[in-house]
Amino acid sequence: MKDRKLLMIPGPIEFSPEVMQAMGMSPTSHVDPAFIEVFGQALERMREVFLAPTGQPFIMAGSGTLAMDIAASNLIEPGDRALVVTTGHFSDRYVGVLERYGAVVTQVDPPAIGDRPSLDDIEAALKGGDYKVMTVTHVDTSTGVCADVRGCAGLARKYNTLIIVDGVCAVASEEMRMDEWGIDVSLTASQKGVGVPPGLALVMAGPRAMEAFRNRTTPVGSYYSDWEKWLPIMEGYESRQPRYFGTPAVNLVWALNVSLGQILDEGMDNRFARHRRYSDAFKAAVTALGMKQIPVSPDKAATTLTAPYYPEGVDAGVLKYINEAGVILAGGLHPAINTKYFRIGHMGVVNRADILATIGAIEAGLSRAGYAFEAGAGLAAAQASLRE
Amino acid sequence: MKDRKLLMIPGPIEFSPEVMQAMGMSPTSHVDPAFIEVFGQALERMREVFLAPTGQPFIMAGSGTLAMDIAASNLIEPGDRALVVTTGHFSDRYVGVLERYGAVVTQVDPPAIGDRPSLDDIEAALKGGDYKVMTVTHVDTSTGVCADVRGCAGLARKYNTLIIVDGVCAVASEEMRMDEWGIDVSLTASQKGVGVPPGLALVMAGPRAMEAFRNRTTPVGSYYSDWEKWLPIMEGYESRQPRYFGTPAVNLVWALNVSLGQILDEGMDNRFARHRRYSDAFKAAVTALGMKQIPVSPDKAATTLTAPYYPEGVDAGVLKYINEAGVILAGGLHPAINTKYFRIGHMGVVNRADILATIGAIEAGLSRAGYAFEAGAGLAAAQASLRE
Repeated sequence: MKDRKLLMIPGPIEFSPEVMQAMGMSPTSHVDPAFIEVFGQALERMREVFLAPTGQPFIMAGSGTLAMDIAASNLIEPGDRALVVTTGHFSDRYVGVLERYGAVVTQVDPPAIGDRPSLDDIEAALKGGDYKVMTVTHVDTSTGVCADVRGCAGLARKYNTLIIVDGVCAVASEEMRMDEWGIDVSLTASQKGVGVPPGLALVMAGPRAMEAFRNRTTPVGSYYSDWEKWLPIMEGYESRQPRYFGTPAVNLVWALNVSLGQILDEGMDNRFARHRRYSDAFKAAVTALGMKQIPVSPDKAATTLTAPYYPEGVDAGVLKYINEAGVILAGGLHPAINTKYFRIGHMGVVNRADILATIGAIEAGLSRAGYAFEAGAGLAAAQASLRE
Repeated sequence: MKDRKLLMIPGPIEFSPEVMQAMGMSPTSHVDPAFIEVFGQALERMREVFLAPTGQPFIMAGSGTLAMDIAASNLIEPGDRALVVTTGHFSDRYVGVLERYGAVVTQVDPPAIGDRPSLDDIEAALKGGDYKVMTVTHVDTSTGVCADVRGCAGLARKYNTLIIVDGVCAVASEEMRMDEWGIDVSLTASQKGVGVPPGLALVMAGPRAMEAFRNRTTPVGSYYSDWEKWLPIMEGYESRQPRYFGTPAVNLVWALNVSLGQILDEGMDNRFARHRRYSDAFKAAVTALGMKQIPVSPDKAATTLTAPYYPEGVDAGVLKYINEAGVILAGGLHPAINTKYFRIGHMGVVNRADILATIGAIEAGLSRAGYAFEAGAGLAAAQASLRE
C-alpha cells in the first residue's frame, strides 16, 4: 500500500515529477550559461503566464509575504494614500505592509465575512480620496473569496490609481489578464498555482508601476526589496547576461522554468477552464454532502480552493480522520471563524483523480465523525458535474 | 566519460547526495508534523553549528543579502552610528544596507586591497564615536580576506557596541565561536559552508542583539525582515507548534536539517580543521604554480576560498580552459581589480579528490593558456601539504 498522502491544501500543493527532478538535480552556478538561459526563459515565460506582454518580471528568493512587501515598498512613499479592498485575513494583512512604508490606509470592508465589497462601494471610496495605490486580494486564501479583479482594475484606471493584485492563491489558475484588464502589479508565491515548492516571490510590474517607481523622490524603505537593485539583474538575465546582486535560488529557478513551461503547454485559457471545471465539481460535492461554504455565493468563490463550514456536530477533529483516509487538508485561517471551517486547495497540476480521492477521503472522515449522509453522495455529485 | 563538471566557486558549492534527495522529495505541508519536527530540529542544530547556545536562530526564505538586511534593519534606528570594518566589496556593501535604515556610517579601511584594518585602527575608530553597531565581514568573498573576528568582537565588548558578523562565506567552515567570542549577530546564506542550495537566509541573534531589538522606539524599516513577525514563528516551531507568517521554503528547510546534521556529525572542531588543511594544500599548490594571492599574508587569508592573481601573460580566458578540463571556477569580483584574479571555493563537503581535481584542471588550463611551469608542481605541493 502506498503510504504517501495527497497534499490538498491551498499551498504548498502537489508538484509535477519534472519540477521535483529540477529541485533535486545537481546544482549549477548562478552564472553557468545553462542557468542564465533558464533564468532568462523563466522571466519570458512569466510574462506569458501573467498575460502581461508589457510587464517587468521579478523573480526573487523569498515567500509570498516578500512579494507583497516588494509591491508595497517600491510604490509607496511616506504620506501616500492607499485603499485596501477587504475580502479576508490576507487583505487585512496588506494594511500593515502598506503602513510600514508610510502609507495612509483606508479599507473598504465587505458586508460580511465570505462576501466582497461591491464595485459601487469601492468606487465611492475611490471618489472620496486621492489614492496612489489600491490593493485587491484576488483569492483570499483565508476565506476562498474571489475578488472582481477586472472590475477593480477598471475603477483603478478610471480614478488614476495604481492597482496591486495580490495573486498568491490565484496566479496561473484563476483567470487574470494583466495587460488587458489594466493591472499594475500582480504578485504570487511559487508554491501555489505556479506549481513550484515554496521559496520564490514572483512579481510582475506593469509600465505605470515602473514609472511610479522611477518617479519616487525617497529611497525604497526596504533594502532587499528595492527594484533599483533587482531591475538590472532581471534585465541582465533576460538579455542572457548574468548580473549579481543576491545569489538566485538556483534549483527553485530551474524548477520554476520547468513548471512555467508546463503551464504554457497547457495554455492559459485551458488552464483557467480546467480549474473552473474541477472547482465546480468539488463544490457540487461539498453541497451534496450538506456543507455550506464561506463565500456567500458561487460567483464570489475562488476556483483554486474550497472553504466549507463543518456540518452540524462536526469539528476540526474530522481533519485527522480525513488525513488517515489519505488526504491532507487545511483548517480555517480567518481569525474570526477559524474553528468553524476547513480548506481544500485544488490548483496547479491537480487532476480528476485527486479531486475524487479528496472527496472520498472527506466522506470517509465525515462518516467516522458520526455525520449522517448518504455514502457516495459527494462523489456522485462531482461525477455528474464533471460529465456536464 | 562523466560529463558533469565540478563546481568549485565560492557558492553555490557541491552538495551532499542526502541534501539533494531532500530537495527533490515530494513536498510536505508547512504544518505537517514531520515538517514541524524538522524545522524545530534545524533551529536547534543551527545553535550548535554557530556555537551559540544562547542565540535566537532565524531561518527565512531569501538570499544572503536578505540576511544582511535582517541584521541591519532590526538593529538600526534612524540616526544610529555604525562602523563598517572594510575588507572588500561585501564589506562596502554593508554601508548601503545600514544607511538604508537610517544609520550614519563610518568605514575603517584597510591599508590596501587584500589587507584588513588593524585592531588598533579599529579601536581608534571605536574610541572616537558612539557606535551602536559595527559590522565585520568574516570572509569577504570578493577578496578572500579573513577578518580577525575574535579580535573585533573583543573590541565590540570593550566599547559596548553590537557586532554583526557577516559570515556568508564563513559559517560552518571558518572557525567562529559566537557565544565564546561575544558576537551579537552572525548571518549566512544556505549555499556556502552550510551546504544547502541557495534560497535560505540564516541569522543567529545573541541576547544583546535581541535586547537592542526589543528596546527599539521606531518600527523596523522593512516589513519582511521584521523580527517582531518572525520571532513567534521561530519560537513556535522550536517548541514544535506550527505558527504562520510566511510559508517556509519547505524543501530547503528539509535539506538544511539534513546538512546541519551532517555538519554536527563531523563536529565543528574537525570541520574547521578540515577546511584549514585543504585550504593550506590548495594555497601551497597556487604558490608552487607561481601565482600570488589577493590576501597580503597567509594569516589574513580565508580557508573557505582562494583568490589567486592570474600569472604573467594569463587572463580570465584561462577560466574557460579550466572549465573544459572539468572544473568550474569564478572570476574576480572586487570592482577595482576584477580582471586580474580568479576565485576557487573549497568549503562544505569538499574532499581531497575535489582539491586535487581542481588543481589538476588549473594546471591544464594554465598550460593551454601558454603559461610555462613544471607540470604537476601544484599537485605535488598539495600532496606534500596534505601529508604533513
